[in-house]
Amino acid sequence: MASHSDDTETAARRPRGRPRKSDQLVDTREQIVRAAGTEFAANGYDASSVRAIARRAGVDASLVHHYFESKADLFAATVRVPVRPDRVVAEVLAGPRDQIGVNLVRALVVALDDPVASRRVIRLLHTALGQEFAATLLRQFVSHEVLGRIAKSLEGDEPELRASLAASQMVGLIVARYGVRLEPLASASPDEVARRVGPVVQWHLMGEPPDGHGT
Amino acid sequence: MASHSDDTETAARRPRGRPRKSDQLVDTREQIVRAAGTEFAANGYDASSVRAIARRAGVDASLVHHYFESKADLFAATVRVPVRPDRVVAEVLAGPRDQIGVNLVRALVVALDDPVASRRVIRLLHTALGQEFAATLLRQFVSHEVLGRIAKSLEGDEPELRASLAASQMVGLIVARYGVRLEPLASASPDEVARRVGPVVQWHLMGEPPDGHGT
Repeated sequence: MASHSDDTETAARRPRGRPRKSDQLVDTREQIVRAAGTEFAANGYDASSVRAIARRAGVDASLVHHYFESKADLFAATVRVPVRPDRVVAEVLAGPRDQIGVNLVRALVVALDDPVASRRVIRLLHTALGQEFAATLLRQFVSHEVLGRIAKSLEGDEPELRASLAASQMVGLIVARYGVRLEPLASASPDEVARRVGPVVQWHLMGEPPDGHGT
Repeated sequence: MASHSDDTETAARRPRGRPRKSDQLVDTREQIVRAAGTEFAANGYDASSVRAIARRAGVDASLVHHYFESKADLFAATVRVPVRPDRVVAEVLAGPRDQIGVNLVRALVVALDDPVASRRVIRLLHTALGQEFAATLLRQFVSHEVLGRIAKSLEGDEPELRASLAASQMVGLIVARYGVRLEPLASASPDEVARRVGPVVQWHLMGEPPDGHGT
């Protein structure tokens, strides 16, 4: 799967160097975001630290923490995606167990029915499918911040596999509805999509159909 | 979703002009494939005809039919993808009704566990997520040659919606296993994937869990 390393389109566009805006506060935040982007691209998500990003930005680590609560915040800022799957998952997992699938799907669709949000997420997936380092970065972020969190909350065998299967349905929903725009899925209401896809995600997560009957 | 029109990477690489190989038979076939690529890019899948492709290639339509049985064959040749979803679907639909999901998933995974095949399919999805015309082309091909065929075979309400939902799970499986390579899904055996994802695809297609219990 190393065939896409020749596609450097997005890497070439990532802004580099010092920011031009005059406001020093914006400058510092932007400088940190750019340093994070460079650090993530160089070392991946898992091996990058807030400390290393601060060093690369030429600021103190405490200043990074002033702007960004966590490494996940820094990643979200570098890819400029307004949807935070890690936060959505944390919220949904705190709700009713039998509604996790429906609530995850509804949150995803409501967020991505905003065209700016869906364009950015599709752009992120486009880059990940074209560049090895971007795929690794996305995989590490999703595994660490999203799937790990979900798997920890699941009972039964192979929670990690079930979490990754649920993710496959979610990412497929994103690609089919917002990327390739397959109809009638692309035009279905958020409620209809949640009603139909939610139980499937729930099944993946729980390892059996939501009504409790096995296959 | 017209934001990616600036990404012309793949379009720029598509070979154009007359082929260089000396073998005239290979030349003619290649010439037709290139004409098909140009025609599809200009007019989309639905509005392109074998006749127009023949005209563009400067050959008789009967010669096109000599090399290619159908428009779907021409499309598959232009994107150089060795997996033929239209044929797989036709075969699976001819088999046992309660095994459609499992058989579709197994056929997909067995075909794409070949690295050449998965690279080409991921490249196709990468292009579709980056270019408006490529998304349209893929959507029209999938809708016409794959989903239409499936929907026609389904009973009950909204067969088209159910077919597009099943497609979302299939495409998500492709992106998660072969593109982003989420673990442990990326390393799971084809049997394991078919066993876990097949019933979910079946559910999408039938509108209820495979064992007949509704939600």
